[in-house]
Amino acid sequence: MTTTTTPTTEVLLARRRAALGPHSPTFYDEPLQLVSGEGVWLRGADGVDYLDAYNNVPHVGHCNPVVVRAIADQAARLNIHTRYVHETVVEYAEALLGTFAPPLDKVFFTNSGSEANELALRMARQHTGSTGVLVSDFSYHGNTTSLAELTTGLTVKERQGTHVRALRVPDLDTDGRPEETVLAEALAAARAAVASLRDAGHGISAFLFDPLFSTEGLPRVPSGYVEAVAALVRDAGGVVVADEVQSGFGRTGTRLWGHELFDITPELVTLGKPMGNGHPLGAVVTTDALLEEFGSANLYFNTFAGNPVSAAAGAAVLREMADRELRAGALKVGDRARTLLGEVAANHPGVNSVRGTGLFFGLDFTDAEGRPDAALTRRVVEDMRRRGVLISRVGRHENVLKIRPPLVFGHDHLTLLVDRLAECLTALETA
Amino acid sequence: MTTTTTPTTEVLLARRRAALGPHSPTFYDEPLQLVSGEGVWLRGADGVDYLDAYNNVPHVGHCNPVVVRAIADQAARLNIHTRYVHETVVEYAEALLGTFAPPLDKVFFTNSGSEANELALRMARQHTGSTGVLVSDFSYHGNTTSLAELTTGLTVKERQGTHVRALRVPDLDTDGRPEETVLAEALAAARAAVASLRDAGHGISAFLFDPLFSTEGLPRVPSGYVEAVAALVRDAGGVVVADEVQSGFGRTGTRLWGHELFDITPELVTLGKPMGNGHPLGAVVTTDALLEEFGSANLYFNTFAGNPVSAAAGAAVLREMADRELRAGALKVGDRARTLLGEVAANHPGVNSVRGTGLFFGLDFTDAEGRPDAALTRRVVEDMRRRGVLISRVGRHENVLKIRPPLVFGHDHLTLLVDRLAECLTALETA
Repeated sequence: MTTTTTPTTEVLLARRRAALGPHSPTFYDEPLQLVSGEGVWLRGADGVDYLDAYNNVPHVGHCNPVVVRAIADQAARLNIHTRYVHETVVEYAEALLGTFAPPLDKVFFTNSGSEANELALRMARQHTGSTGVLVSDFSYHGNTTSLAELTTGLTVKERQGTHVRALRVPDLDTDGRPEETVLAEALAAARAAVASLRDAGHGISAFLFDPLFSTEGLPRVPSGYVEAVAALVRDAGGVVVADEVQSGFGRTGTRLWGHELFDITPELVTLGKPMGNGHPLGAVVTTDALLEEFGSANLYFNTFAGNPVSAAAGAAVLREMADRELRAGALKVGDRARTLLGEVAANHPGVNSVRGTGLFFGLDFTDAEGRPDAALTRRVVEDMRRRGVLISRVGRHENVLKIRPPLVFGHDHLTLLVDRLAECLTALETA
Repeated sequence: MTTTTTPTTEVLLARRRAALGPHSPTFYDEPLQLVSGEGVWLRGADGVDYLDAYNNVPHVGHCNPVVVRAIADQAARLNIHTRYVHETVVEYAEALLGTFAPPLDKVFFTNSGSEANELALRMARQHTGSTGVLVSDFSYHGNTTSLAELTTGLTVKERQGTHVRALRVPDLDTDGRPEETVLAEALAAARAAVASLRDAGHGISAFLFDPLFSTEGLPRVPSGYVEAVAALVRDAGGVVVADEVQSGFGRTGTRLWGHELFDITPELVTLGKPMGNGHPLGAVVTTDALLEEFGSANLYFNTFAGNPVSAAAGAAVLREMADRELRAGALKVGDRARTLLGEVAANHPGVNSVRGTGLFFGLDFTDAEGRPDAALTRRVVEDMRRRGVLISRVGRHENVLKIRPPLVFGHDHLTLLVDRLAECLTALETA
């Protein structure tokens, strides 16, 4: 199995298509073959060191030595499921729950964000006896059948479930009207959606949302919007599920959890991507009452979830975040990013706004008539790769740069990113 | 977070209940706290080395050094998702697919058996345009909502889906009638189930089965049963999904895949538990046509699945199996196990039959009237733990010992297991 030389990307892609098929998605017109990683750097098979300004999974840095050692040590000592008792998973559960405010004091571990959202919705349905779900109209929460039925932000063959209502999340950056007008209209739509679910007999089980509205393109939502939708849903008997797969673990800079950006406490919080720095790990954090209700009515077991190696990986991520004060770093670097990107925006007429929170930010591009400019955005992403910087794009119009680096992204890396982006925009304008 | 001394099991259990709740299942009247593992041995916090005759996840042995090194080395080099191209996942996919017969030549990676079965059923539904599923009436295929709706072998709150028909899998070991009579009756029931799904408008998407019928208690099914049900389902437009989470990777001894016990080629094969020796890893293996149909209609992406660390773990398992000829070993040790257990059975009237295939075997216990004896089976499992041997029980009557050790279980381990079991049965009979 071991090859002594790295195959060319062309050869490897042909072999990949033969084994994984042609639809397994890749980035870039010419997919990028990677061989190693360290911190915020990824080494390509082309010998180039790329600045990773995109990937949130390697949260505390690619191949973080503390996490790697934790995984290696625990894998050499014991890897076993939770039908036996072991200390590591309990210690990790305690450390993780210590970052949540009451009454969020219980956790179910899973192996992915999809498994976490699937479980959270299962719990919400059982708790409420209803099936209705409110999501945003350009969102993604996972790849199971139940989640495909409420997927609005990427292509699935399943029709949107009759029990699903998709809300347009308001965006003050692209909606020129006064905030109170935008808010009132959005809440009227939410009220109508809840009423429609009730009238159709589905009732409402959950409002499922990403506190950053990442897939939606990081819209700037009116103050009070999320709280008001949560209140509507609760008044109708439903619960609030915060999908923190993207917004969690200090990504926003100001708080550890994205839902803390708002004045709400969700009944269910789902975790994924950055949780194990790439090791498959997810979770549902919930209240004692909801755990009791679900746990007493269902034998829920998950073979791999909560194994001591996964727990050791997760615990190492939390330790690294604390020891290196990465959340505070994300706030500082993220704030400076918005300042510097604001300067870039001022010099380039294609940039409509600078958006985002903490170490998740982007520019949205519009053409001379103010329309979303997906073509320019795409060219920027491709050109930045040629300049050695990895970013992507997002949003319903695919016109928002998605810049979401590992949390160890520092000021020097930011300077490099902004310099390259300014060069890129200048080059594309004069091309 | 690091504690310098191991807490007592009592203290740890209290902390566990506070964090994970009281319903997270554990084995044994007094749950067993573990601290380390090596090969077929597990070290308890009580200082006892337990012979592991139960766990199939540590397939090539607890803390297998080849797998541990593969994980540690790759985690230190690169862990990234498949939107970039990397060699390890392609090499692993090729090695894995090389163990399947055509036309099974494509793979989707997942993080668990639940994710694999969820994806397989999603593909089957899309392919057939139908929702109906045939399962056995005491089976378990995973913990998502879709899978809970067809769970018959453990407690879930969801009602069985109206699109689900559950078949009683015939068992020649407990059904005294002639094989052809048992077969005819079972096939009549399968035909009726398919007709009922058609009449109810659900049609049929899939026959989902574990080739060993593990949860069912390893029944000895009539020759031709599985093939005939598969043919019925295909004639009605459905596909066959072999859930190889338990039966795969050489467990049966004779072949690498459980479905090869029968004269069928499933359209979809799902993998899990032993695949990464405990590292979260699963897969759906399928045909080019089914992958093409699903992949062209859905953007399927799974963040963690197919990452190079998971792939390295899976590849190391396949290498270890080949280098140490573990499938052939499972056949030899398993055959001797059935011989030795037959001798035990002959000396103990509570044993009704010796069952199983390869390194998955058990005894079923009945009382003096021939009724399933769950109480005795439970006492055997508890007593064996006190004798330093870990096994469990399974089946609808919970009267079948579940003995399913790591594949590195050798003749010496078997001798120890059988000696302890004979001592245990004698002691229980004279108690």
